[in-house]
Amino acid sequence: MAVRTAGKKPFQERLNKAYDWMAREGIGMAMIEDSEDRRDSSLRWLTGMPADALLFLSVERKALLVPWDINIARIYAEADYLRSYGEFDRLPVKACKKAAALLKIPHNSRVEIPSVTPYPRFLGFIEALTDFDVICRETDSFSGALEQFRAVKDEEEIAVYRRAAAITDGIIDLLEKQLRGGKLKTEYDAAQLIEGECRKQGCEGTGFKTLAAGPGRSFAIHAFPPYTMEPFGTPGLSILDFGVAYRGYTTDVTLTVAADSTRAQEKLVTLTEKAYKLALETARSGRAAVDIAAGVDAFFARANKSMPHALGHGIGLDAHESPVLRNRGDNGWILEPGMVITLEPGLYDSKLGGCRLENDVLITEQGAEALTHSRIIRL
Amino acid sequence: MAVRTAGKKPFQERLNKAYDWMAREGIGMAMIEDSEDRRDSSLRWLTGMPADALLFLSVERKALLVPWDINIARIYAEADYLRSYGEFDRLPVKACKKAAALLKIPHNSRVEIPSVTPYPRFLGFIEALTDFDVICRETDSFSGALEQFRAVKDEEEIAVYRRAAAITDGIIDLLEKQLRGGKLKTEYDAAQLIEGECRKQGCEGTGFKTLAAGPGRSFAIHAFPPYTMEPFGTPGLSILDFGVAYRGYTTDVTLTVAADSTRAQEKLVTLTEKAYKLALETARSGRAAVDIAAGVDAFFARANKSMPHALGHGIGLDAHESPVLRNRGDNGWILEPGMVITLEPGLYDSKLGGCRLENDVLITEQGAEALTHSRIIRL
Repeated sequence: MAVRTAGKKPFQERLNKAYDWMAREGIGMAMIEDSEDRRDSSLRWLTGMPADALLFLSVERKALLVPWDINIARIYAEADYLRSYGEFDRLPVKACKKAAALLKIPHNSRVEIPSVTPYPRFLGFIEALTDFDVICRETDSFSGALEQFRAVKDEEEIAVYRRAAAITDGIIDLLEKQLRGGKLKTEYDAAQLIEGECRKQGCEGTGFKTLAAGPGRSFAIHAFPPYTMEPFGTPGLSILDFGVAYRGYTTDVTLTVAADSTRAQEKLVTLTEKAYKLALETARSGRAAVDIAAGVDAFFARANKSMPHALGHGIGLDAHESPVLRNRGDNGWILEPGMVITLEPGLYDSKLGGCRLENDVLITEQGAEALTHSRIIRL
Repeated sequence: MAVRTAGKKPFQERLNKAYDWMAREGIGMAMIEDSEDRRDSSLRWLTGMPADALLFLSVERKALLVPWDINIARIYAEADYLRSYGEFDRLPVKACKKAAALLKIPHNSRVEIPSVTPYPRFLGFIEALTDFDVICRETDSFSGALEQFRAVKDEEEIAVYRRAAAITDGIIDLLEKQLRGGKLKTEYDAAQLIEGECRKQGCEGTGFKTLAAGPGRSFAIHAFPPYTMEPFGTPGLSILDFGVAYRGYTTDVTLTVAADSTRAQEKLVTLTEKAYKLALETARSGRAAVDIAAGVDAFFARANKSMPHALGHGIGLDAHESPVLRNRGDNGWILEPGMVITLEPGLYDSKLGGCRLENDVLITEQGAEALTHSRIIRL
C-alpha cells in the first residue's frame, strides 16, 4: 500500500472539520463516492482528487482514497492511504468492507454512506456490512454537513474566485467588443471564444456546457442544443450563459444581447435589470434566502410576469451548490459571509425570446459584492 | 392541461414495449426522472424530451410528461398529457402523487420508481403514497427493462448511427490531415476542430467532454483536465477520445498518435492494435461479453501488461450504456444483433504515456461491423 504525506493545507483543515463532525455524531467511518453515476465534489474538496474515486474517513482521523485511476491520484490527491479501485473489482460495497478492515474500524461502529445511495444499493451495503451499523440519511447527514461546510468559502477559495471572476470579466469584455465589431456572429463563435480564452488564462475549461442561444432559441431557460451554428446577437434577444473553471471552481454568468429590440422585448430587459438590482441590494448576511427570492418574484408579479426558475444558487466546485435562492417553503438557508452565490433573474416568452442577467456575488459582513460584471448589451 | 398528439413512431413502439412490460409485471404506474442529480436518457428514448423532466406511464397506456421547461417540451416531446413541473413545486414526490390521480391509477396499485432513487427519498415516496404499493428495485426493475430494450438498437437508431459514424470518420480524416500538415499543434486545436466540425455537420455537439492528451498527459485513462493548451502529436504518445452526438446518439472513438515513438512505446501501440483486432474478431452475436473481455485481458497478460478498464460498452443516447464488456463475474450480457458497442483496448504507463484504440461496432447476425474507423496514427 502506498502511504502518502497526509493532507496539506487547505485539505487538512477541511478534513479536520469532517473528522470533528464525525466525532460529535459518533460516526466511526464515513464514505464519499464520486463516480459517473453520482458525482460528489466533496471528494475534491477534501483531497484534491478531481473525480472518480471513493474516499473513506475514519473517526481516528485517517483518510483512505480509492481511485479509479491511480496515476491521477498520485499527482493530484492528498490522503493517508491510497489503494486502487481495481483491487476491489470497482465495487463500492466490496471497497467499503475492505476499507473498514484497513482503517481498523471497531465492530458495531456506525458507518455512514452517501445520502444519494440508491435504495437497492443501500440494501447491498446492509447485507455485506453485518458487523457495522450502516446509516444512509438525508437529514443531519454527513453529506449534508459537507454541503454546509462547502457553502461558506474559506480564504483560499475566495482568492481563487477573485481570479476566476477577473478571467470571466475579461471574457465578457472581449465578447462585447467582438459583438460590437461584428466579428462574433454565431452561437458557436461565442462558445468558441470562451473555450479558447479560458484555457489561455489557465482555466481547466468551462465549468459547464456553455449555453448560447440566439433570438430564435432564447425562449428556453436552458437552450437545447446548448449552442449551434445559428446567428447570435442579431435583432431580438440572445442569451449567453457560461462559466469558467479555475482550479476547480466555476463562475456562472449570463449576459443578454438585446439588438434592435421591440418595446415588448425592451420591457422584459428592463424588468430583468431592475430585478437584478433589487436582488443585489437585498442579498446580505443574516437574511433568509427565501425572502430575497420572494422579493424578486413579487416584483415580477406586480408586472404580471413570472420567473420559471429559482433566483440563484451557490457556486463552487459544482455549478450548483448550496445555498439555493428559491422561493419555496422548504428553503431554510440564511446568507452568511463567505457564501458565493449567483443572482440570475430571467424572463422567457415563447414569441419575444428570453432575457437573463446573472452575476456571481460574495456575501460579506457589509452586504453583497458583485465579483463578476455581466450585463445587458444593447445593440 | 395541454393534451397532445400521442406518440409518433418510433416513440409509440418504444412506449408499447414499456406498457407491455408493465402489464406483464403488474405495475400500475411507472416513473422516470431525468434531473441534474440523476440523468436518465430513457426519458428521451420514450418521448423525445431531451432532458429535465419527469415521465409517468400508466398501465392503461397513457404518458404524462412533467417538464422543467414547458417551451422545450412543446417543441421536442410526445406525450398524452403535459403539465409543468412548476405546478408541483418541482418536487418529485408531489408530482408522483398528483400523477397517480391524474392518470386514474387505482388505489393499491404497484407504483414503480427509479432504481437509482436515494434511500432517504424512497422513504419520502413511501410516506406520501400511502394508497399505493411503492416499489424501488434493481433486479427485474422497470429501469432495468428499459436498459435491456435500449441495448438493442432499432432500425431508426441504426440509421442514425451510420450517419453519426460517417461524421466521426470525416473528423478523424481531417484530424489526421491537419496533424500531418503541421496545422494541428495543441490539445486545444484537436478539441476545437471537433467542436466546430460536428456542428457544421448538424450534430448537437460532442457526446461527452473531448479528452485530448499530449505526450505529457496521456498516461491517464481519462486526462485531467480534459484538454489544455499543451502540445499534441509531438514526440511520444498522444491520445484523443471523442464522440459526436447526432440526434441524441453519441459515437465514442479514441485515436492514438505515436510520433517518433521509442521501442517501448511502439510495443504498447502494437499490443493495443493486436488487442483491438482480437476484440473485433471475437465480438459476435451469441457470445458472452465477459468472454470477449477476458480474451483481451489474457492477451495482455501474456505480454505482462494489464488494462485498467473494461474492454468496451454499449453506446446510444448515453456515452455509456449496456451491455458492458467487462471481465467480471457479475457480467451476464450476451451480445445480440442490433447492439452498438465500443471496443477500446488501452495500455497506460506513467513514464511511456498511454495508448488506446477505440471504435464503435454494430453486432450483426454475421459478426461485428466496425461503424467507425479510428486508428493509430504514426508520425
